[in-house]
Amino acid sequence: MINKLVEKIVKQGAPVVVGLDPMMKFVPKHLKEAAFEQYGETLEGAAEAVWQFNKAIIDNIYDIVPAVKPQIAMYEQFGLPGMAAFKKTVDYCHEKDMMVIGDVKRGDIGSTSEAYATAHLGRVQVGSKSLAAFDEDFATVNPYLGSDGIKPFLKVCAEEKKGIFILVKTSNPSSGEFQDRLIDGKPLYELVGEKVNEWASECMGGKYSYVGAVVGATYPEMGKTLRKVMPKSFILVPGYGAQGGKAEDLVHFFDEDGLGAIVNSSRGIIAAYTKEEYAEFGEKNFAEASRQAALDMIADINGALKSR
Amino acid sequence: MINKLVEKIVKQGAPVVVGLDPMMKFVPKHLKEAAFEQYGETLEGAAEAVWQFNKAIIDNIYDIVPAVKPQIAMYEQFGLPGMAAFKKTVDYCHEKDMMVIGDVKRGDIGSTSEAYATAHLGRVQVGSKSLAAFDEDFATVNPYLGSDGIKPFLKVCAEEKKGIFILVKTSNPSSGEFQDRLIDGKPLYELVGEKVNEWASECMGGKYSYVGAVVGATYPEMGKTLRKVMPKSFILVPGYGAQGGKAEDLVHFFDEDGLGAIVNSSRGIIAAYTKEEYAEFGEKNFAEASRQAALDMIADINGALKSR
Repeated sequence: MINKLVEKIVKQGAPVVVGLDPMMKFVPKHLKEAAFEQYGETLEGAAEAVWQFNKAIIDNIYDIVPAVKPQIAMYEQFGLPGMAAFKKTVDYCHEKDMMVIGDVKRGDIGSTSEAYATAHLGRVQVGSKSLAAFDEDFATVNPYLGSDGIKPFLKVCAEEKKGIFILVKTSNPSSGEFQDRLIDGKPLYELVGEKVNEWASECMGGKYSYVGAVVGATYPEMGKTLRKVMPKSFILVPGYGAQGGKAEDLVHFFDEDGLGAIVNSSRGIIAAYTKEEYAEFGEKNFAEASRQAALDMIADINGALKSR
Repeated sequence: MINKLVEKIVKQGAPVVVGLDPMMKFVPKHLKEAAFEQYGETLEGAAEAVWQFNKAIIDNIYDIVPAVKPQIAMYEQFGLPGMAAFKKTVDYCHEKDMMVIGDVKRGDIGSTSEAYATAHLGRVQVGSKSLAAFDEDFATVNPYLGSDGIKPFLKVCAEEKKGIFILVKTSNPSSGEFQDRLIDGKPLYELVGEKVNEWASECMGGKYSYVGAVVGATYPEMGKTLRKVMPKSFILVPGYGAQGGKAEDLVHFFDEDGLGAIVNSSRGIIAAYTKEEYAEFGEKNFAEASRQAALDMIADINGALKSR
């Protein structure tokens, strides 16, 4: 899948991923009203509103954006109906030939990590049948438990030719509390980066490994270092736009040939219609606003890559 | 909920929690056959087998064990039907007045962590209604992202009087890869422990805080240190039995009065019937074997606590 992701990025000229994190406050009123009319103010109603919101955005970006990154927490909060909306979103993206990075940040040990890997990337054995559960193309993984937590994911990645992005340096303000602490003179995130590079070597796709990393756009200097520490890994870069990451800072996360990174924007795209810049579209045309915001983001990043 | 947990532990004389991690290989043949006959070899069939397995065990332990800890990965691997079995298990435990620690190891930033906290402990706003999603009593949380990831959980804990257990030192062999690395002369797990103690102070229940910690039974010396570093926190201790933790090692995780810790066993209890020691029960009476194994575990731990 990492090869397919690279191909799609090159073909569409768009090293970007849209975060489908549908908080209720972003979902336009007319979608909520229609869903509540059908299902009431229930978890089912919320899930239906979220699904219709996602579907309209996917329909408007699938030809210009290679991948989406649904944040599973936003679906989990609506319980079982929310999880069903997550699954519907994954399947619909696949119908539209978009790739799906499940932003699940799972991580546990041994057989439990294997179960998470199975849930999101693999196939589970039920009697004589081998069945897929959520079936994303990539998943994000938390490294705090060490190799025991990562190895089961590597096994599933190798079997299914799917991929993971391991949290190395996250985009949030307090990420430094533990991640920046110095160990033998090196910050923890760099040690994690070195382990990611080891794991990546065990699981190469083509030029890049099935094992990627998450490094926040909000820390460009660290991105520069980590790009060198993990030469085999694609970097998933959150934090562009709403969190403050700028295109000119992002160039450090890319290789010389303009590959090696994919930049995420969530609310900057899906809630574009709420911003002054795209207000002309109006709430009803929220998905067209998302398309325009995605086009602008692609141009912004490609512009920065060309002028470096 | 931490006060209720303490009360139940005292009343039942049992500082133990049973890990409901129903891997298919633990589920007796007759339950699988019955479920597959009804639903086929499908995710629904697997979920039904898991649910019937859990139900029988809960029916046999609810009067002697205060809490269960379902490992959500084991349900997630069966997709939406698996998640429905998880929810059914949580609800059934509540019917039986057992407490539920959702072993979900979630952790993200800001609004995403808030969504996870809402999903597992809180209530989500849908129009004019406030609705619960999975509704466990406690959840386990990963600290790698720092305070930004934890604070939203604290908010929900305070509102709902529910609790979290933050991963400090995990029970697996490679947990030391990052957790044991020295920072200013102190291992990372100790720094995390100090932060847990800070967070715990903000969220006190009674004698103990709503904020607890996970420390593996397999590292008793570290347990001794961490007990002192986090005096306000209940410690959830995995790794007893199958992973090698022994009762005499566990006493270090408890306070002088025999409180302050709750010890988990998963396969040692739920798959007791597969062990020589409990083979006399036979596969059909797996749940009675689980009851006996739980009684033996309680006696083992209480014995060690008395003789220290």
